[in-house]
Amino acid sequence: MKYCSLCGSEVRVGVPEGDNRERYICDHCSTVHYNNPKVVAGCIAHWEDKVLMCRRAIEPRQGLWTVPAGFMENGETTYEGAVRETLEEANARVAVDDLFVTVNLPHINQVYMLFRGRLLDLDFSPGDESLEVELMTEKDIPWNRVAFPTVTEALKLYFADSARGKFSVRMLDIVREGGVPGRYSVRNIS
Amino acid sequence: MKYCSLCGSEVRVGVPEGDNRERYICDHCSTVHYNNPKVVAGCIAHWEDKVLMCRRAIEPRQGLWTVPAGFMENGETTYEGAVRETLEEANARVAVDDLFVTVNLPHINQVYMLFRGRLLDLDFSPGDESLEVELMTEKDIPWNRVAFPTVTEALKLYFADSARGKFSVRMLDIVREGGVPGRYSVRNIS
Repeated sequence: MKYCSLCGSEVRVGVPEGDNRERYICDHCSTVHYNNPKVVAGCIAHWEDKVLMCRRAIEPRQGLWTVPAGFMENGETTYEGAVRETLEEANARVAVDDLFVTVNLPHINQVYMLFRGRLLDLDFSPGDESLEVELMTEKDIPWNRVAFPTVTEALKLYFADSARGKFSVRMLDIVREGGVPGRYSVRNIS
Repeated sequence: MKYCSLCGSEVRVGVPEGDNRERYICDHCSTVHYNNPKVVAGCIAHWEDKVLMCRRAIEPRQGLWTVPAGFMENGETTYEGAVRETLEEANARVAVDDLFVTVNLPHINQVYMLFRGRLLDLDFSPGDESLEVELMTEKDIPWNRVAFPTVTEALKLYFADSARGKFSVRMLDIVREGGVPGRYSVRNIS
């Protein structure tokens, strides 16, 4: 941020009075601009012992596999975001079961909220952001070609819970190790 | 938003190519500016059969009672936000137990994530944003002077679960009815 989005003046970085963090401050119109983490809403869409996987048509991680997920939009709930992303990326309709896993990604200011959702029919196909969409069992998942560690960890937990016949609501942290892209540590919070 | 925060040019409202929602678009530097919901992280900080309540020193709802909660910051996890808010608003230290309730508030583009947290000691006091801080049993809570419906609903669920000796992870929607401030409907999602 270089300019105030309200008045167009140049902003400076500073700690506002009564605050303890650096923000972008506009001295011209006295606006403090806050920047906060974003929610990524997504869905583990299941059918029998399979889950719906999408191969990404776009960067980042083009060509790799993920579950339908994307930035939550204003005016919707978390699970509505998950339903919408499943429709947009896989042209698939789901009935949401429940929140399954929340993943904190503090190094990129994101919180993933992945829901379990029951596929309502098998009439799915790639959306604009997907190259392929497939139903996969645990053994079908191309584990070394999954797009994001969040998705790998969520699917591992999903299939483990599925095998024991009981789903718990989980929380994980995935933190970049030593600031190195591609190296992560996973903390199970609950 | 009137001006591009990157280049200072005037923005226009339009639907970007490949998108299906209106965004602020800068034609000068070709930037699309997204606006997404914010996470409010908070804590039901408990000690025996009591929870920690703060009387708000600031607007909105100055003088009314709430649990410690506030906007999640970049670089932190959801539960770190809850711990930080508890420290800032009540000078109180907690060990987080678990996520308790997620509340979708689509009419104000917020997602509340309230954690249960065990108070580590009784050395608490009002922070800058609080007038008073008190430990309250269910009967002590001034139910008609609670600041936000989110907090009322979360506390009702908390004391109900506490009475049956088992906490479930919950999700609620709180939606403004007919667009009228002060009139809400509550939907229990899980």
